[in-house]
Amino acid sequence: MQSLRVSMAPRATARAVTCPSRRCFTAGMPLRAAQKPFYEGEPGGPVLKTKIPGPQSTKHIKELSEVFETRSLSLLADYTQSFGNYIADTDGNQLLDVYAQIASIPIGYNNPALAKAAATPEMIRALINRPALGNFPSHDWAEILKTGILKVAPKGLPHVFTALAGSDANELAYKAAFMHRRQQERGGYDVDFTAQELESVMNNQSPGSSQLSILSFKTSFHGRLFGSLSTTRSKPIHKLDIPAFDWPQATFPQLRYPLEQHAAENAKAEQASLDEVEHLIKTWHLPPAALIVEPIQSEGGDNHASPSFFRALRALTKKHNVLMIVDEVQTGVGATGKFWAHEHWGLDEDDAPDMVTFSKKAQTAGYYYRQPSLQPNRPYRQFNTWMGDPARALLFRAIVDEVARLDLVQNTARVGAYLYEQLEGLAGRYPDLFRNLRGKGQGTFIAFDSPKRDEFLARAKAEGINIGGSGTSAVRLRPMLILREMHVDILIDALDKVARAL
Amino acid sequence: MQSLRVSMAPRATARAVTCPSRRCFTAGMPLRAAQKPFYEGEPGGPVLKTKIPGPQSTKHIKELSEVFETRSLSLLADYTQSFGNYIADTDGNQLLDVYAQIASIPIGYNNPALAKAAATPEMIRALINRPALGNFPSHDWAEILKTGILKVAPKGLPHVFTALAGSDANELAYKAAFMHRRQQERGGYDVDFTAQELESVMNNQSPGSSQLSILSFKTSFHGRLFGSLSTTRSKPIHKLDIPAFDWPQATFPQLRYPLEQHAAENAKAEQASLDEVEHLIKTWHLPPAALIVEPIQSEGGDNHASPSFFRALRALTKKHNVLMIVDEVQTGVGATGKFWAHEHWGLDEDDAPDMVTFSKKAQTAGYYYRQPSLQPNRPYRQFNTWMGDPARALLFRAIVDEVARLDLVQNTARVGAYLYEQLEGLAGRYPDLFRNLRGKGQGTFIAFDSPKRDEFLARAKAEGINIGGSGTSAVRLRPMLILREMHVDILIDALDKVARAL
Repeated sequence: MQSLRVSMAPRATARAVTCPSRRCFTAGMPLRAAQKPFYEGEPGGPVLKTKIPGPQSTKHIKELSEVFETRSLSLLADYTQSFGNYIADTDGNQLLDVYAQIASIPIGYNNPALAKAAATPEMIRALINRPALGNFPSHDWAEILKTGILKVAPKGLPHVFTALAGSDANELAYKAAFMHRRQQERGGYDVDFTAQELESVMNNQSPGSSQLSILSFKTSFHGRLFGSLSTTRSKPIHKLDIPAFDWPQATFPQLRYPLEQHAAENAKAEQASLDEVEHLIKTWHLPPAALIVEPIQSEGGDNHASPSFFRALRALTKKHNVLMIVDEVQTGVGATGKFWAHEHWGLDEDDAPDMVTFSKKAQTAGYYYRQPSLQPNRPYRQFNTWMGDPARALLFRAIVDEVARLDLVQNTARVGAYLYEQLEGLAGRYPDLFRNLRGKGQGTFIAFDSPKRDEFLARAKAEGINIGGSGTSAVRLRPMLILREMHVDILIDALDKVARAL
Repeated sequence: MQSLRVSMAPRATARAVTCPSRRCFTAGMPLRAAQKPFYEGEPGGPVLKTKIPGPQSTKHIKELSEVFETRSLSLLADYTQSFGNYIADTDGNQLLDVYAQIASIPIGYNNPALAKAAATPEMIRALINRPALGNFPSHDWAEILKTGILKVAPKGLPHVFTALAGSDANELAYKAAFMHRRQQERGGYDVDFTAQELESVMNNQSPGSSQLSILSFKTSFHGRLFGSLSTTRSKPIHKLDIPAFDWPQATFPQLRYPLEQHAAENAKAEQASLDEVEHLIKTWHLPPAALIVEPIQSEGGDNHASPSFFRALRALTKKHNVLMIVDEVQTGVGATGKFWAHEHWGLDEDDAPDMVTFSKKAQTAGYYYRQPSLQPNRPYRQFNTWMGDPARALLFRAIVDEVARLDLVQNTARVGAYLYEQLEGLAGRYPDLFRNLRGKGQGTFIAFDSPKRDEFLARAKAEGINIGGSGTSAVRLRPMLILREMHVDILIDALDKVARAL
């Protein structure tokens, strides 16, 4: 176990003196070793006291497996000992976590600002007096929205409908799209339902139940409830045996890397995708009320497309009166070096997407929307008991405040550039193990393909790095917004070792 | 405003002396006025300082309407001033709340035991370090489950899969049912998928996407996401314009009241319903993998059926290899005078339902299940990022502890009997306004029909009582588990006034 020996001692401080590899000197980047983490409490580097899982973890996993699903377990965590960028287990191991609970921890474990927000009387009240927000909202709900969720609303989308998680956020957006489209077909926002609609809908038949669809892309992921799963096209294991709506899917551009060497070919792939989208909109037997797209397909393998592709997609949807929903569940809240990834597209406010869904790092969920007519024309059409969660909205507010105070979106843009450059160095040295490096200029939202991906991830864990995969062969980096250059150095060092050993 | 004068002063103590109506003396019930609430801080009775909404509330509602849905708003609440059974607004009004956030507040506003649980380091950690439970569960997750959610597992259902709300709990149960049924059809738990299945499912086509259904009942409510909404048959407004699966619905027995006067007729209605269920199971073009049923149809208008109906339904589902899912989202956690409403059916453990879903008063959600084979045969088939919420699981544990400490299920059974008796008295005096009184022996889960229902509810609010409706004409009582006889007296007094004025 070579990794044990090397990793037992904190390493970042040692590196300040030795700086053993060339990454310290590339491209004029200054030495970063003197940096401190944004928050105190982190170890100086990964700490590996046992192999993983160690004896304590093994005991706990056995106990847990009697009452909960553990076949997908990656690490049995000890959150009392996890701090900042590091996740701990009960055997005393501490791993640099660049997966961050499937991209959902924004500013580190046991963040002191969040701990403070979680201990306020306001939070306690929100937790223990959970309202049915549609019927009995609290007097300060408007203020909580305005100082949190709405403070970071994407440009051009001033409204929000709150939800509990990414999957239901997407489904609520779909429902808004269907109601909006049918109301147009009905002849206007105020036109009432027909007797035939009112009757047929109770039998799940048209015209009351609409014969419309949501258009999504191949290799996309939008959630796993029945409507969202019908748009998810990531892997069979996500979908097998579950009834699905007969909705259309278009091919997502499959870009070749490095981008600059395949410009013409990639432009052609993007145009083919746009043509297919237009064809499906025009011909699918259940007309799409909306199209949903991720700015970067995440679960599906970190598939990117160019800003010009997305701008053209926006134009297409407008041309054909199809609503555009941007699924920012994984890309949102700073990870790409913009607060929302679709800001990279450079759309005018007039061309902003119709809806943007969010969750994960926001710790709450919902969809932002553009036009007031996306609010259904009658109350109780878009409704459920809780309609969100004020406690989680308060937490998001505290996250938003910290992100602003520490300028963490800008930090992520800068650290991401450094990380990308270091990975380019590794790709130069180990071209077979770091293929199709992608995410340049996209903050730390970076991935590459590795032929023995699962072995790569296992070896990284043994080096004290927690990383996740996506798609069939992608290693995806999904660190927190508090990743600094010092953490990148540790990560690169470990990946270098993994590569050498493979 | 007659109500203002009467309601300004605490009334329960005054009643100890005067006891102006006959309810104090019926059926040998002792005088209850000396009772105290379970928790301190409640007013002695409703406090009405302004009409509702008052000037402060009106201002806040206007502000909120700019950023959130307020067309369904019933009361803009001030949770800093709400205690126990009473909900307050910002104008100083305090209403006896027998609706309780659509039946989802279990043990009162600002409950001190829950406030304590919400302020623990354990809760703070759970809030700010939210794990992806399927990948990185915390070392104490097994313990949290065993001392909370699983401690109150229904008889015969020792397993749980956790969720976020009632709607997704039902959908996850449906997914488990579909996977279970297809695995049977495939020839066993360990038989692998075919190449054709793996390919077709990515196009949302069979055989990979199953051609199966969930059988539900007319006038049922099971949630509003795409799968759950396909089983919901409550009202058109819940379903209009949303695509739905072509799944079957059976007629729920429409019992006539009083039950004892319509025994033969009601038995016939129940048999007809059972026959229809069996017919649909045998003939529907998409065979039902499961049937879902509420012990008492709640949103649909508080529709009851007899224990023998449910026992026969259970037998039918077993006979035809259809899984039985009992939706206890609204009925569960004590409200019917049993912890789970289906305990009233007297099923043997061998005949326990296959799955029981829960949420609302539990403040968390999920489905309990019976046989290990309901766990899908591969990891990642039933999976999502958060898979529940440890913070809310901790809250449910604190609720479970308080319910046990104060014997609140038994309290609800006893107070419910008293409440039912008092309502019978009102029904005797105002037969047109209190029709089809139902819920005898079902704790406080009581309802009646009133022809001018919405006016009835508005007048009750003006008397300081917050009540909800369901279905087209039902007034449904959904108080908390901490309702005592003293609160019943206040409620009955107010309803008497409402009835006299109508």
